[in-house]
Amino acid sequence: MKNVTLKVEGMSCGHCVNSIEGALKTIGASGKVDLSGGTVAVAYDESQLTITAIKEAIEEQGYDVV
Amino acid sequence: MKNVTLKVEGMSCGHCVNSIEGALKTIGASGKVDLSGGTVAVAYDESQLTITAIKEAIEEQGYDVV
Repeated sequence: MKNVTLKVEGMSCGHCVNSIEGALKTIGASGKVDLSGGTVAVAYDESQLTITAIKEAIEEQGYDVV
Repeated sequence: MKNVTLKVEGMSCGHCVNSIEGALKTIGASGKVDLSGGTVAVAYDESQLTITAIKEAIEEQGYDVV
């Protein structure tokens, strides 16, 4: 299991938390949004997922990974 | 049809817009959120709905009508 913390722009409320954490769960990762910090801590299996796929899942929800 | 514009706190993103406009639609009113202005313009039939019911529908979504 690999852990990364991504800086994500545009997250502003509980709905945003749910959409991002839900999208990560859908692809088989586990995410925890820190709204005030503007970050998403992600745990994922490197044999199953790439960091690119993680970022894409977040960006598809309408947020920018910076 | 009566039109009122309410000042609402806590609306921050597109999900918020959808949740408030959806809640108003559910009770038979029509709402338009102005995120940057922090307002919700509501059109409703006074013979069917009260302003109290309108405010409650918004507050039930987790926002404060001020």
